[in-house]
Amino acid sequence: MTKIGAWLIGARGSLASTVLVGARAITHGLSGPGGLVTELPDVAALPLAGLEQLVFGGWDVGSTPILERARRMALEDRALPEGLVAALEDDLRAAELRVRPGVIEGRGPVTRGLNGARAARQIEPLAAAIEQLEADLDRFRAEHRLDTIIVVNVASTEPHITLTPEHDSLEGIQRLIHLERRASFTPSMLYAYVALERGFPYVNFTPSLGIMPRGLQELGVKHGVPFYGSDGKTGETLMKTVLAPLFRCRNLEVMSWDGFNILGGGDGRVLSDPRHKQSKIRSKSGVLASSLGYAPPGKVSIDYVPSLGNWNTAWDHIHFKGFLGTKMSAQFIWQGCDSILAAPLVLDLIRLTEFAHRRGESGPMVHLASFFKNPLDVKVHGFTDQFAMLLDYVEGHRTRLGRRR
Amino acid sequence: MTKIGAWLIGARGSLASTVLVGARAITHGLSGPGGLVTELPDVAALPLAGLEQLVFGGWDVGSTPILERARRMALEDRALPEGLVAALEDDLRAAELRVRPGVIEGRGPVTRGLNGARAARQIEPLAAAIEQLEADLDRFRAEHRLDTIIVVNVASTEPHITLTPEHDSLEGIQRLIHLERRASFTPSMLYAYVALERGFPYVNFTPSLGIMPRGLQELGVKHGVPFYGSDGKTGETLMKTVLAPLFRCRNLEVMSWDGFNILGGGDGRVLSDPRHKQSKIRSKSGVLASSLGYAPPGKVSIDYVPSLGNWNTAWDHIHFKGFLGTKMSAQFIWQGCDSILAAPLVLDLIRLTEFAHRRGESGPMVHLASFFKNPLDVKVHGFTDQFAMLLDYVEGHRTRLGRRR
Amino acid sequence: MTKIGAWLIGARGSLASTVLVGARAITHGLSGPGGLVTELPDVAALPLAGLEQLVFGGWDVGSTPILERARRMALEDRALPEGLVAALEDDLRAAELRVRPGVIEGRGPVTRGLNGARAARQIEPLAAAIEQLEADLDRFRAEHRLDTIIVVNVASTEPHITLTPEHDSLEGIQRLIHLERRASFTPSMLYAYVALERGFPYVNFTPSLGIMPRGLQELGVKHGVPFYGSDGKTGETLMKTVLAPLFRCRNLEVMSWDGFNILGGGDGRVLSDPRHKQSKIRSKSGVLASSLGYAPPGKVSIDYVPSLGNWNTAWDHIHFKGFLGTKMSAQFIWQGCDSILAAPLVLDLIRLTEFAHRRGESGPMVHLASFFKNPLDVKVHGFTDQFAMLLDYVEGHRTRLGRRR
Amino acid sequence: MTKIGAWLIGARGSLASTVLVGARAITHGLSGPGGLVTELPDVAALPLAGLEQLVFGGWDVGSTPILERARRMALEDRALPEGLVAALEDDLRAAELRVRPGVIEGRGPVTRGLNGARAARQIEPLAAAIEQLEADLDRFRAEHRLDTIIVVNVASTEPHITLTPEHDSLEGIQRLIHLERRASFTPSMLYAYVALERGFPYVNFTPSLGIMPRGLQELGVKHGVPFYGSDGKTGETLMKTVLAPLFRCRNLEVMSWDGFNILGGGDGRVLSDPRHKQSKIRSKSGVLASSLGYAPPGKVSIDYVPSLGNWNTAWDHIHFKGFLGTKMSAQFIWQGCDSILAAPLVLDLIRLTEFAHRRGESGPMVHLASFFKNPLDVKVHGFTDQFAMLLDYVEGHRTRLGRRR
Repeated sequence: MTKIGAWLIGARGSLASTVLVGARAITHGLSGPGGLVTELPDVAALPLAGLEQLVFGGWDVGSTPILERARRMALEDRALPEGLVAALEDDLRAAELRVRPGVIEGRGPVTRGLNGARAARQIEPLAAAIEQLEADLDRFRAEHRLDTIIVVNVASTEPHITLTPEHDSLEGIQRLIHLERRASFTPSMLYAYVALERGFPYVNFTPSLGIMPRGLQELGVKHGVPFYGSDGKTGETLMKTVLAPLFRCRNLEVMSWDGFNILGGGDGRVLSDPRHKQSKIRSKSGVLASSLGYAPPGKVSIDYVPSLGNWNTAWDHIHFKGFLGTKMSAQFIWQGCDSILAAPLVLDLIRLTEFAHRRGESGPMVHLASFFKNPLDVKVHGFTDQFAMLLDYVEGHRTRLGRRR
Repeated sequence: MTKIGAWLIGARGSLASTVLVGARAITHGLSGPGGLVTELPDVAALPLAGLEQLVFGGWDVGSTPILERARRMALEDRALPEGLVAALEDDLRAAELRVRPGVIEGRGPVTRGLNGARAARQIEPLAAAIEQLEADLDRFRAEHRLDTIIVVNVASTEPHITLTPEHDSLEGIQRLIHLERRASFTPSMLYAYVALERGFPYVNFTPSLGIMPRGLQELGVKHGVPFYGSDGKTGETLMKTVLAPLFRCRNLEVMSWDGFNILGGGDGRVLSDPRHKQSKIRSKSGVLASSLGYAPPGKVSIDYVPSLGNWNTAWDHIHFKGFLGTKMSAQFIWQGCDSILAAPLVLDLIRLTEFAHRRGESGPMVHLASFFKNPLDVKVHGFTDQFAMLLDYVEGHRTRLGRRR
Repeated sequence: MTKIGAWLIGARGSLASTVLVGARAITHGLSGPGGLVTELPDVAALPLAGLEQLVFGGWDVGSTPILERARRMALEDRALPEGLVAALEDDLRAAELRVRPGVIEGRGPVTRGLNGARAARQIEPLAAAIEQLEADLDRFRAEHRLDTIIVVNVASTEPHITLTPEHDSLEGIQRLIHLERRASFTPSMLYAYVALERGFPYVNFTPSLGIMPRGLQELGVKHGVPFYGSDGKTGETLMKTVLAPLFRCRNLEVMSWDGFNILGGGDGRVLSDPRHKQSKIRSKSGVLASSLGYAPPGKVSIDYVPSLGNWNTAWDHIHFKGFLGTKMSAQFIWQGCDSILAAPLVLDLIRLTEFAHRRGESGPMVHLASFFKNPLDVKVHGFTDQFAMLLDYVEGHRTRLGRRR
Repeated sequence: MTKIGAWLIGARGSLASTVLVGARAITHGLSGPGGLVTELPDVAALPLAGLEQLVFGGWDVGSTPILERARRMALEDRALPEGLVAALEDDLRAAELRVRPGVIEGRGPVTRGLNGARAARQIEPLAAAIEQLEADLDRFRAEHRLDTIIVVNVASTEPHITLTPEHDSLEGIQRLIHLERRASFTPSMLYAYVALERGFPYVNFTPSLGIMPRGLQELGVKHGVPFYGSDGKTGETLMKTVLAPLFRCRNLEVMSWDGFNILGGGDGRVLSDPRHKQSKIRSKSGVLASSLGYAPPGKVSIDYVPSLGNWNTAWDHIHFKGFLGTKMSAQFIWQGCDSILAAPLVLDLIRLTEFAHRRGESGPMVHLASFFKNPLDVKVHGFTDQFAMLLDYVEGHRTRLGRRR
């Protein structure tokens, strides 16, 4: 059995911990595959890697161990069964040993608090930081005799920085590194650089910049590596992209669409910092314009409610104009557990990315658009239309591989 | 300019009145086309009839005049501007003159109350009733020099009756008529028989049986007439068919989906009769099984709240199982004005049916599936997939007609 | 330290199990007193019994052990921490030994399923059943050297039976027993008879008849015993009695108030039987008329959604008429865990009833009205007004006892 | 019949227009008294002035006429019947003639837009502005032979200014006027000064400072005039003060209470300015701490959604901790029309203030606490407790006046 590395940026967070619990629970037969898109009959037709083939590792800047995080998910959030976490203690401890210190940009008041003594490296000088991170990946591969490594960013949202023309080319980016322009890089960009430079696929599950700079995409194409992002679509925004076509197809003008999110947990705390929140809201706000064909007035807000823990409640109010100008409204309330919603998608992305890589595909994996709030190079924002792109991809490969339903 | 008859069953109801107000308001330039699917650029590419070409008439068993009904929609329900109704008084009075007495089956406690002295005919004997109804259509066509007549059922929901093998063939149906088996027919079936027998397309916008018996469909095909139904998809059920794919495509098991509707108005009153309500609930309940691939437990309830008038509020609670068995929920609240939501669809259906008829198409118009809760001969229940069928139809005709976008 | 018996009817149900877990967890210092009204400073001023003084026992007709029920509350409903249940295993097993077989009326399709071989006694002949039940209480008291026993009905809702004039007097009731009129008694009435006859206070936390017959109340007064009920007010109905004064005090006419409850668990299953549900709905429906001064149209529905377990979700829609006839609405969504909401109230009632009994009070404890949906002999239905009655009671006793704040 | 002046600050706004429409509609018998607290039997026992005795006038800085505003309420917001507004055209035009230019502080970006050529006066010099405003009141009284004038502030929310020790005494305030310290006054304070100085009661229905400075209250007491405020309690906050006792009386810890308001109209537009919004949010935020006894975390947000017009939708999410630490939630959705909710309260306040003035009462009218978000000198924040204060007041007067129920 070949082994595949699953390298998670933010490996000690709630999401990564849930990914680990899930992969191991399913491998041990302790839980079913519900929530995994890759287990839908239409998608499972591809010869995807099994979850038992995955070896997990990653970077993190925090020091709360994975096992501790999983226990909190069970005890405080009641999002995982306590007994399941207990049964997987050995697996979680083993994964803990494969977590390496992440880089930190050192400016943010929120992330500064996370900066444990041994848990993070300053990103200066850039070249040295890159070298260390590359060494982490190489050692991981060698130690576990991995076929490849899929790098997935599941860390907290970073503050946004403004991209410059130099970010548009690989040459420009390398010049910025050489000139030690630290303010031109966020950690997620450095991680993407490192992964692609070493020939490993990179998936950005967060709204951080990650793979957004064109110069980094150029690097991926240069090395023949697939990549994609950004920002996993799990809750309120998923509902939005599912609902918006109703109004468009029925010629009902959306006069306003306001969405109010409350959540706790680490994500909630990080997003309570306005600089971090801005990246997230920017990511959430774009979908309506492309789904409806116009941008209705309205607001997306995110507020930190510590008692909610990993649970996110969103209330959306849609005010629309019907026939003869009569105003009507629809509202929805979404109550989801963020890590539980996101974790299976991360596993799906690892499997689908590994498959694309194995098949020699490179560049943006546009067939994965339905997984993201801001799918790279895809203009289609209706969810079912995006999902059809995935089914078409599967169908194409099945035909090529001579498989049958 | 050719003229087209729009013959509404239930011509004095809230929906028909709103259809009339809308068609005339748009024709006079008093209102915009918002809410009309046929005004979306993608659909408007077809050479459809203009609303100004429509001449309205119909059957009804009630005696409240159209103008009075429209005024109530304005004053009591605040669903139409009072001034708009005032501006269209002449048009509504003119349409009133083209309403003929409908047939009544005489058994229901609810419809019995509607039975005005001159407003309804008993359906006995059947052959005589059919003859009278056919004469209504012929006279309407002759008096107004109409190219054709599109018959649309927008009356209140009838009680359900059980279909027998004899309903499966035209011959069987004609035998039932000959034998005067009145209990084998609901008014909506008689209307459908009459329309198709006279070569006019028939569209069933209600959950009543209407066109459902295969023998009636045979009659339509025999005369080369298009037809379709049933039950316009406007509110809660529309939301359901839009939302269900989210759960299916994400492999999230729906453990229960419960929907509670409250509404007033004539529809609410009729549906407060358990026999009528059953037809409606049966129609609303089917969509989930086909959208999800399985029928989750759950209930659809409809309760009569007189003060709501034409406004329908629905609360749906969806309980679903996520990754690792964690339970989550989504809820939506829909607050729509039924007649305002349905009226533009009725106009859309008249235009699209007239176009199909003009192009020589006959049989079930499956490309109209997205308009209905129970689309005849269509298994696809996801809304956007159904809508794609309409776009494909338009695209096909555009190619054939040599039109360009 | 004196000891007090807490004898629960339905001792193996979710609610009784939660009562036990709570009392023991607080006694062991494993949990805080949040949710206990008797721990509010204003009420704790009374010299109430400590939770550590309570010895639990009871009747039940089911056979699922208390420990097993508590584990399900933890694992399936995530309503209790698994670790807490584990820490209390010994306590729960000890209580299990003090559960005696309940009586069963043997007719209901739902309760029939519960009829374990050794777990229930048929209630025939009545006199014999009464004798056995009395013996249960006497033995419980003797074995544990209890000062008194407080009997609380926390069993599932029984079907309603119609009371006759004979139920209005103690003499009549004893005649019915003598004549072996089994259809004139529900188990809750027999239990009440037994408790009061033996001089023990009885509290009816369910909508079952229990203490409702005037003849049973006569028995309580005869023996100088306090009693009260019925139907603990925990969720949707509590919200109703809190909200209704808003509309009454602002002179806003409630045009309709509709409430839709969905719940799972044992209660949900029992209530899915129309005969049982009717008792519950009757109990929930009365509060608005007395809170508002008139009975607005509207419905209370309860539907069984197994996946919800012990969690109850209620959606209430209130349609009200404002100034100049403008219609507006308020909605609420209540998501509570029934046993968690009810359990502390049961403990409160045990403590307050024991105090009343100790102080020599007898008859209906009207100062406990705020705990019940249908408070015996109290017309005040506004929640805060009812709560003021409790505070007045406390204040009166404090004055008498010479205590100070 | 004696006549009473009702002088509204913001006389051309939506609220004032609705107050006028309501008072005249009821006087003409075109509408019922629903929504008026003073028409509740318990309150109507007082010999209050009839609505037909009120003569309306006021100040405003805008130029949209009352009639035009009322028409928009009917046409755009569908909050009033068009026909009712049409029937009252003469009354509204007559009131228009009694509107005088208000003062404007000239700094706010929002109110600057309202500054019509003749509609507003700069407040400099202060003494001159005060003289003009006093002259307005005196002329109004003389022209209409009014017994007294009740001044009520129903204008949009002003930006908050910081009060200084000089605001704490009448002497200090008069010194600020003398020194022409314009930045120490908002218009609402000047209006209050003018009213009280001329011996007329003043009621502040807005969150603006108005009567808050102690020096102004001293002026009221000096002239023996009653006054009160501030900020009418109509929607979300009313729900809060009604609901909060549920959690307090049941010993359920509120872990967070978040409220999200969306509204349009003039109020919405003014509140979209952060400086104005801050005054409003400050006013809304205080109630929980006093109702619960502690301030739970949580946010109050107000967002401007133009399409909603005068309709305010609020979603509140209450996260609370139950027995044994189990977390539960309650949510409510309030959909009200602000002016329709507030208008009857303004009429109530005019009547109750006039009564107090007639009876020779002066100072803060604490019995009116239930009408306000921030009731002056009252610590009780539970709504029903506040309402009991009004009933006690009525009862006291009834006894004194020798009236019987």
